Amino acid sequence: MELNGDVRDVITILHGAGGTYMYNLVRNVIIKILGNETGEIGLVDLDDSAVISGVAFTTDSYTIKPIFFPGGDIGRLAVSGTINDLAMVGAEPAALSLALIIEEGFPIRDLVRILESVRSTANEAGAAVVTRDAKVVEKGGIDQIIINTSGIGFRSQELDHNFKILEERNVRKRWLVPENIRPGDKVIVTGTIGDHGIAVMAAREGIKFKINVTSDVQPLNKMIKAALSIGGVADAKDPTRGGLASALNDIAEGSGFGIFIRESSIPVREDVKMAAEFLGLDLLEIGNEGKAILIVSSKTYKDVLEALRSTPQGRDAEVIGEIVKDFEGVVMETEVGGKRYVPRPVGDPVPRIC
Amino acid sequence: MELNGDVRDVITILHGAGGTYMYNLVRNVIIKILGNETGEIGLVDLDDSAVISGVAFTTDSYTIKPIFFPGGDIGRLAVSGTINDLAMVGAEPAALSLALIIEEGFPIRDLVRILESVRSTANEAGAAVVTRDAKVVEKGGIDQIIINTSGIGFRSQELDHNFKILEERNVRKRWLVPENIRPGDKVIVTGTIGDHGIAVMAAREGIKFKINVTSDVQPLNKMIKAALSIGGVADAKDPTRGGLASALNDIAEGSGFGIFIRESSIPVREDVKMAAEFLGLDLLEIGNEGKAILIVSSKTYKDVLEALRSTPQGRDAEVIGEIVKDFEGVVMETEVGGKRYVPRPVGDPVPRIC
Repeated sequence: MELNGDVRDVITILHGAGGTYMYNLVRNVIIKILGNETGEIGLVDLDDSAVISGVAFTTDSYTIKPIFFPGGDIGRLAVSGTINDLAMVGAEPAALSLALIIEEGFPIRDLVRILESVRSTANEAGAAVVTRDAKVVEKGGIDQIIINTSGIGFRSQELDHNFKILEERNVRKRWLVPENIRPGDKVIVTGTIGDHGIAVMAAREGIKFKINVTSDVQPLNKMIKAALSIGGVADAKDPTRGGLASALNDIAEGSGFGIFIRESSIPVREDVKMAAEFLGLDLLEIGNEGKAILIVSSKTYKDVLEALRSTPQGRDAEVIGEIVKDFEGVVMETEVGGKRYVPRPVGDPVPRIC
Repeated sequence: MELNGDVRDVITILHGAGGTYMYNLVRNVIIKILGNETGEIGLVDLDDSAVISGVAFTTDSYTIKPIFFPGGDIGRLAVSGTINDLAMVGAEPAALSLALIIEEGFPIRDLVRILESVRSTANEAGAAVVTRDAKVVEKGGIDQIIINTSGIGFRSQELDHNFKILEERNVRKRWLVPENIRPGDKVIVTGTIGDHGIAVMAAREGIKFKINVTSDVQPLNKMIKAALSIGGVADAKDPTRGGLASALNDIAEGSGFGIFIRESSIPVREDVKMAAEFLGLDLLEIGNEGKAILIVSSKTYKDVLEALRSTPQGRDAEVIGEIVKDFEGVVMETEVGGKRYVPRPVGDPVPRIC
């Protein structure tokens, strides 16, 4: 087959980041070959879960380094990531699979710690690990441990209620997808951005300056459920790899509309901001593991915001902008009052953060 | 927590094999910590799929070396393995996830070849890849490529018919599980054993003697469906890691009965037998990727055998023994007429064959 776009001869680290290389690899190679033959929501949507006969289904592998970091570990990350992929299409997470790939010589003590974290995070989300696999590869065959979690979820009453509020839109897919978005919708971010990427970076590089940031890694399904119980949520997406910049571009492209955001409205911890500046990183491109972007009808967004803020996961939620039809892509009004496009990042400023 | 059994301080290659170390790791660490709180068929059954609210769900990771081998590749293996895990509980495979972990520098040409194999194998099974993930790790972080496939499946009419034939047993779980087995049931193997392990071993080690064995890797769902349409199938299991020895011990333990098999009835290719002897490997412990063990009512086994033989996947099916209540475990009558226990293998004679 012919390869188009930015896909070169070999896989590079850039292909694994949340940016344009990854986007092209997925679009021009993976989806082009695998196609998309079934399901209400399938591969071509570029959404994080597919829906087949009413069952939402998703998968993710985790190769984070280090495997234990301030605020979490690879087990909590793997469970939260998959729970959140289900929650972001509006599914109620039910069951998870856990596939461990372990390097020979890995301490069983650490495996136990990771499994206990898997269990407690699944409990926190109200889901259960129901099927598992374990493979061991020789020393040097992988770096410590890699975890894959897949998950299945079902429709909830809250999701049906949510779409009743959006009835005048005649949405075809009654799951949270960008096609449901309309101009005038509000853009909400459910909390401070950059915490996960900076926490992992600090742990990995042993950053010397005073910083006390912990990862935000957490399951968001209960927070999403609270928002859906108000109703009027058109779409949701968690800004993981590639951060806000990548997720907002996905939403804009999927909806066919533009997104206008105000930098001054984006919630950021002061120490995270300083750390990002020190490291020369763009906060908008840093991955998060416990935050969501919600696109909400202008009729209900105030109540949705209140509902989000009443949950522990969404207490710092803010409206950061709105959906517009005047332009395509993502435009940000900067803190000094200028306007700039927010492009899809080329690569990930912090590799192996998930 | 306290660790029991054969679990030592660090993970060893033996923990990843289909033998006693693996069994103890799963039993004494993974299941002990994760528990089993939901589902009709959950973790404690040690079955390869779980069933939640009527949806069968399974996961597996593939780390095979080499990734291209006679008769298949890691893509065909990953799809077949997950399809077969669903088929072995009696589910009709519907949708697959595909999670790629790729080493930096991996040729895109090879990725394309693997993805095309994924697509054609999924087509062969009548299933679709509906959700995917791709991660890239730095050179040396893994060995070329690791694939995880999870899968979901649903009940079929054939499965319901199958259990009507078994109605007098009052089975509680109307899926294929060892608890449904009764003394007098026949043990069927659906084809020649050892082909996959020997083919991979020959490809890996560049074995010099004349051998023309290809892997049996293939999806078995259509063959299982043919058997279920006759009815009276109590249980099914594919003898992958740990081979026939491991799978038969799982079945015996899960059923609470013994298994008696005749060595002379086990289908084996002559060249595979010679290669195993040359390499000092026990054929019963070598992994297969396109064969199943079926435990079938004595009332229907002849028709089931005929149905199996009418499919391309089951043309070499044979009855190799029966379920007995006189002893526990697995006993084999050898070709020279003696009897020996077939123990659960300690490790895998061929590491990284899946």
